[in-house]
Amino acid sequence: MYTPSLEKLSSELSRLPGIGPKTALRLSYFILRSPKDYVTALSEALVDVKNKVKLCEKCYSYTEQVLCRICLDPNRDNNLLCIVENPSDIPQIDSSGAFKGRYHVLHGVISPMEGISPRDLKIEPLFKRVQASKGTEDQINEVVLALDADLEGDTTALYIAKTLKTYDINVTRIAHGIPIGGDIDYIDHRTLGRALENRVQI
Amino acid sequence: MYTPSLEKLSSELSRLPGIGPKTALRLSYFILRSPKDYVTALSEALVDVKNKVKLCEKCYSYTEQVLCRICLDPNRDNNLLCIVENPSDIPQIDSSGAFKGRYHVLHGVISPMEGISPRDLKIEPLFKRVQASKGTEDQINEVVLALDADLEGDTTALYIAKTLKTYDINVTRIAHGIPIGGDIDYIDHRTLGRALENRVQI
Repeated sequence: MYTPSLEKLSSELSRLPGIGPKTALRLSYFILRSPKDYVTALSEALVDVKNKVKLCEKCYSYTEQVLCRICLDPNRDNNLLCIVENPSDIPQIDSSGAFKGRYHVLHGVISPMEGISPRDLKIEPLFKRVQASKGTEDQINEVVLALDADLEGDTTALYIAKTLKTYDINVTRIAHGIPIGGDIDYIDHRTLGRALENRVQI
Repeated sequence: MYTPSLEKLSSELSRLPGIGPKTALRLSYFILRSPKDYVTALSEALVDVKNKVKLCEKCYSYTEQVLCRICLDPNRDNNLLCIVENPSDIPQIDSSGAFKGRYHVLHGVISPMEGISPRDLKIEPLFKRVQASKGTEDQINEVVLALDADLEGDTTALYIAKTLKTYDINVTRIAHGIPIGGDIDYIDHRTLGRALENRVQI
């Protein structure tokens, strides 16, 4: 390549996750051949998303208003709160149809390795939110932790559970086990171990 | 997702080649979490590439000037011209180190199926360029066709060769055959057939 602007675009694109230098170059050539309308639209969409999207003041999910659509929805169970790591977890959980409560986004998990402490997450606002609901008709009775079953997820779940239990709240965690349709022969030992520990009466 | 600007970005990104809706959504979330500086830089790089990059007036490769770097390079063999389909083929061929001549980009190949005729390509300027060089000290003596060995590539190569031969020019084509390190057991029949046809004396 002998064109600084093409090299620049290629290098910016290769900073995206899963986009290596070869893919970035291929995308750059595609953009160069694309109609100007499309490139303008993509460029504006990038800036727009940063300018318009902010965190919901209640649950810290993404919204373009003060509160997000789920927090504003009157047909949800205020007594049930699901804790997730990222805003992207919410549509995933919601599309299962098995949860009709509210959400709270931590924006990460506790990770001493990466220097992420509870202070860096939306954990304090969670505690405040739960406490503030006490005695009101919207009192949060159960907090469901929907975090990954890795070291950081487990640490974060335990940390949150420890504090919330002092508030006299039912703290639960989504089940980890064999996926539906999963073949026991091919499941890793840790998942199988967890599935056995968490066995349920039939 | 409940944020129009996030959905918009996701839909624009999913129009890129090799980026499906899931990857587009993942990239959108990444962009939302990225520093504003990066997003601005990426957005500007997109617009810049469309505004700044144009076609070299001589070889039709990409450049930000009137002529591209290869056309301006005084240390290249003017008598040798390599014909490629796309500007992206040039760095590929150049990095082999086996070609030190000039290039000419067709911007496609003849394809009756897709309705692409010689008129839609930079074939006429190629003929003019070759003719204009005649009798000068930069006379083009050999044209090397570096096109894919598929139906469209073959058609285009034959079309160009037919006209150029009337100009009394040596027209060659890059060799197609077994790749270096390729195992004959795993090579397709067409490549093997071509490798046999084009066998060389040792």
